[in-house]
Amino acid sequence: MADFCLTSYLRDRQVVVEQALADALTVSFPEQIYEAMRYSLLAGGKRLRPILCLASCEMVGGELGMALPTACALEMIHTMSLIHDDLPAMDNDDFRRGKPTNHKVFGEAMAILAGDGLLAYAFECIANTQGVPSDRLVRVIQIIAHAASHHGLVGGQVVDLAMEGRADVDESILHYIHTHKTGALLKACVLSGAVLGGASPEDLADLSLYAENIGLAFQIVDDILDLTATTEQLGKTAGKDTRDDKVTYPKLWGIEASQQKAQMLVAEAKAKLAKYGAQAVPLQALADYVIQRDR
Amino acid sequence: MADFCLTSYLRDRQVVVEQALADALTVSFPEQIYEAMRYSLLAGGKRLRPILCLASCEMVGGELGMALPTACALEMIHTMSLIHDDLPAMDNDDFRRGKPTNHKVFGEAMAILAGDGLLAYAFECIANTQGVPSDRLVRVIQIIAHAASHHGLVGGQVVDLAMEGRADVDESILHYIHTHKTGALLKACVLSGAVLGGASPEDLADLSLYAENIGLAFQIVDDILDLTATTEQLGKTAGKDTRDDKVTYPKLWGIEASQQKAQMLVAEAKAKLAKYGAQAVPLQALADYVIQRDR
Repeated sequence: MADFCLTSYLRDRQVVVEQALADALTVSFPEQIYEAMRYSLLAGGKRLRPILCLASCEMVGGELGMALPTACALEMIHTMSLIHDDLPAMDNDDFRRGKPTNHKVFGEAMAILAGDGLLAYAFECIANTQGVPSDRLVRVIQIIAHAASHHGLVGGQVVDLAMEGRADVDESILHYIHTHKTGALLKACVLSGAVLGGASPEDLADLSLYAENIGLAFQIVDDILDLTATTEQLGKTAGKDTRDDKVTYPKLWGIEASQQKAQMLVAEAKAKLAKYGAQAVPLQALADYVIQRDR
Repeated sequence: MADFCLTSYLRDRQVVVEQALADALTVSFPEQIYEAMRYSLLAGGKRLRPILCLASCEMVGGELGMALPTACALEMIHTMSLIHDDLPAMDNDDFRRGKPTNHKVFGEAMAILAGDGLLAYAFECIANTQGVPSDRLVRVIQIIAHAASHHGLVGGQVVDLAMEGRADVDESILHYIHTHKTGALLKACVLSGAVLGGASPEDLADLSLYAENIGLAFQIVDDILDLTATTEQLGKTAGKDTRDDKVTYPKLWGIEASQQKAQMLVAEAKAKLAKYGAQAVPLQALADYVIQRDR
């Protein structure tokens, strides 16, 4: 795979994912809810989560089609968390992926319901997967539901909200927030893809370390981008962490040390997969992408 | 089963369900979210949904323990829908089950997150069920996720909100709202219990008719109670449909004809299960309970 090109890989996979997402949600009665769900689900974005799930499935020898419904489900859950986090009662944000947030367009009631619909439908999509043994699907639902619940996403957002504007947030609380709010679902993407593809316990252990490292690196880069990038570049409000007086990695460690930490985490993640040879090249390239991205 | 006593049956099953729900959510860090989830989940209520699931599993020859995690999951999803429906952006209600609503106690952000947590955790609970073949669990997750999504609960609430204060709501729209907002989850309770217990296709067909009939009867009685019962009796605001100018069955048909319709539906549901003999007595008694309840 000396000729592996991340740019064309990402573009190809984004096309596959976009198409599958659009097909999963064709408009029907009552149209408003489909439109609200599709508005946020099909608003672009990097599609990093579904692409990680697909790449992980293929690394262990599975077919792309085995993981595609779950990849879509992971993007639905991610989108649900963005819609709900943006609500006035939560982070009260007006822009996301360069567009007005869901509740700005459809109203708060519809935004809440669109999130609920996406969360429930995600599990229907996984359970409807064809050509994968049921025990793998059950294991994948365990992993993803755990990551989406108060054990993961929801728990991270709760602590994040509770810590806003507080000066006494130390590294352990910051770590809790990020391993739950961002890390849990990223790890679920990698592990669920692997389970669907028939991973061995050793594969899962290696991929766990990979996922934890890129999850933390992802968050460090997110914090740095919030400080250094523009709103146009991010497609969402920049400088928000400073505005909300949030503790972040660059605030604790400085920007340069944060960048070094992210690079070290990615290098370790890539090294862990070296033994898989060419099969691991896409996941390794995705790890690089996590710290090289500019949005 | 000539000596079957519904009162003691309901009391016994409520104890089993209450205990399992409390055990499923023991408080941990971050405590606020557990407290918000437990506040609404353990606020009493009839526990009709989990009890239907357990009874259906037993009717087809399954063990109670096979359905208990799913029974809890169904109550979690029902509770999620109540928490979110009560939000200011939705029905804006202050009381539920005789207590202040979740957002009144914990604030809107925590109420949204408590609902999200309950919905995701419900699927984790089902997937963690021991002693049931994986293919049955996958089928149950399909059924329940479908009923909770925009294909069920969420779709019903969307149309319900859209129709508020509109005079042109006809019986077909009212029927859509109720088969989705109430009926879909009640049917999922009955069918998921049956699938877990190893139901045959014929069992499932009979139980589908049973569930559809009691679902509609349940809603007709709900509409009648909203007109005739007090807020204290209901534990939630009475007269709300009139206040919100909602179309209801008693408004379309009159109270007496509505009562007759509910009785006819229950009689048909019970007759459908007659061939199961003593095994069906609990479900038949639960059908009677649906129209005899006073809250």
